[in-house]
Amino acid sequence: MRTSLTVAQAGEAATIAAIRQAAPSSLNGDDAAVLEPTGTNSRHVCSTDILVQGRHFTFDYSTPWEVGVKAVTQNFADIQAMGARPTAILMAIATPGDLPLQTVADIARGIDEAASPWAAELVGGDVVTSKDLVISITALGEISGPAAALTLDGAGVGQRIIASGPIGYSAAGLAVLRHYGSRKAIPANDPILNELADWHCAPRLEPGRGSVARATGASAMTDNSDGLIVDLCAIAERSGVCLDLDGAALVPDEKLRHAAQMTGKNPLEWIYTGGEDHTLLGTTDARMPSGYRRIGTVRSLSDEVGEDSPGGVDYVLVDGGRPPFSSGWQSV
Amino acid sequence: MRTSLTVAQAGEAATIAAIRQAAPSSLNGDDAAVLEPTGTNSRHVCSTDILVQGRHFTFDYSTPWEVGVKAVTQNFADIQAMGARPTAILMAIATPGDLPLQTVADIARGIDEAASPWAAELVGGDVVTSKDLVISITALGEISGPAAALTLDGAGVGQRIIASGPIGYSAAGLAVLRHYGSRKAIPANDPILNELADWHCAPRLEPGRGSVARATGASAMTDNSDGLIVDLCAIAERSGVCLDLDGAALVPDEKLRHAAQMTGKNPLEWIYTGGEDHTLLGTTDARMPSGYRRIGTVRSLSDEVGEDSPGGVDYVLVDGGRPPFSSGWQSV
Repeated sequence: MRTSLTVAQAGEAATIAAIRQAAPSSLNGDDAAVLEPTGTNSRHVCSTDILVQGRHFTFDYSTPWEVGVKAVTQNFADIQAMGARPTAILMAIATPGDLPLQTVADIARGIDEAASPWAAELVGGDVVTSKDLVISITALGEISGPAAALTLDGAGVGQRIIASGPIGYSAAGLAVLRHYGSRKAIPANDPILNELADWHCAPRLEPGRGSVARATGASAMTDNSDGLIVDLCAIAERSGVCLDLDGAALVPDEKLRHAAQMTGKNPLEWIYTGGEDHTLLGTTDARMPSGYRRIGTVRSLSDEVGEDSPGGVDYVLVDGGRPPFSSGWQSV
Repeated sequence: MRTSLTVAQAGEAATIAAIRQAAPSSLNGDDAAVLEPTGTNSRHVCSTDILVQGRHFTFDYSTPWEVGVKAVTQNFADIQAMGARPTAILMAIATPGDLPLQTVADIARGIDEAASPWAAELVGGDVVTSKDLVISITALGEISGPAAALTLDGAGVGQRIIASGPIGYSAAGLAVLRHYGSRKAIPANDPILNELADWHCAPRLEPGRGSVARATGASAMTDNSDGLIVDLCAIAERSGVCLDLDGAALVPDEKLRHAAQMTGKNPLEWIYTGGEDHTLLGTTDARMPSGYRRIGTVRSLSDEVGEDSPGGVDYVLVDGGRPPFSSGWQSV
């Protein structure tokens, strides 16, 4: 059922009703949602992100459905990067009164669809009016059993650096969108360019990779949200180690090379600094978790690395040397 | 340590550092925060709100510290209204680049102080730039043991309606602020007017009242956020009952009468429609939980009440008749 009303015309109650229809949950509708534990020694995991129209997304590039999908992906990546299973989403949305109600419903539909592979639901939220469209997403998750969460500080010398998911695709997709100016200006007969743009607008995680990594004994984990070097630097700094990437594991694939040719960009910049792929990145000295590949080795920090190393370059190396690109995504 | 930097001058990392210094938590700083259960049969409870500057708060009336306090109060009220104990806060903040970093730190300090009576902490968040200042708060809580959460649908005919906390003070305080135009224009020698303005800007819950109500066997609960009639109507509709308030339990006290005299307003309107006191409102047929008072009786719905009753007036009565005021707070 599509609607032509604006949010202001519909009012708060009908806006909430449209969201709940697009993303139904029996846990929603009281003062707060109650989440039942599903395993022994159950611990809850929580993370939040805030997305501003024009800064984190634009409807020139993305559909409202894709904005919802991406919001779930980036928050569930944080949950999975703890080795946890996502269980629930809360969405607080501040919207201009003239925004079509259908846009809000489509965002909620994207959230519902992206969360459903985990059997997770949109369990609560808030709706207010504002000048900017601002979407705040909180993701909740659960870990059970005796193993610890996968924190940033667990990497140890000699371990493998591992990754699950593409690296550089989101940045490539953004470059394609910027090159052609809009989604529909991308040549329809070029499936690679369209695939990369799709990935930028609505990246999808393979469900369960975080839990799998924890189950196999991974030692540390994060996700590729701010850029490969920046995100790995967080593990390296917190663990007091150096992450030495294997350049041969990070060569641009055929899709990235094609997009680079069409846009005149360097695909290595997408790989090393792109971010927003939400690829899971971790370390392990146990067996390789399924769905992951090796991209490097954890080494000891050399003595000359200190607080004053700009950009954390010395915490992350490529084939023992400085990365070809090292700045990352900054959201402020 | 005070700072004269703006958020844009400080950048993302220093802004996050200022927040973490103002509201420290050892659970903060990884991809997501992990919350350990503290009791048997532990269930987690979650709720979210989004606050827009100029709509939900203004620095003409409130200090940044008070904005932080109120954000916690309104979210912890939702957690307490489930009979749960608040455990953690997440704050995602979208801020203009020229906002003083000290303002963000003071908001975080208010959050930290308001959460501390529950031993709850600011365990995570997000910081981005935007045109409007928008603060999204997610509150997490916990219930343990066999008793169910206090939902909206548990009120039964013959039970008492109960309340913990002042009703109408927040609306009175807002009327005082509007009457004088700013906080500092309120006569300094009038402690009542200042107390009401303080309450509007930073209402505080008495910690533990939600858990106490659940422990004594209360049947339903919510909080006075949108207005007494509107919020009780939610219980009445979901429970299929009529809530008959006792007018004698809701007469304006000396403070409300004084503020009404000084502003030329009707204090009954503040009591019945004001909202934002975050007073806990519930029903019980068990013993009276400590810290609560009786404000009415649950009755059966009369036959003529139907879906078409505007404003739900027939779901909530005062001394068996229509309330003197019945519209409530609308945030869209």
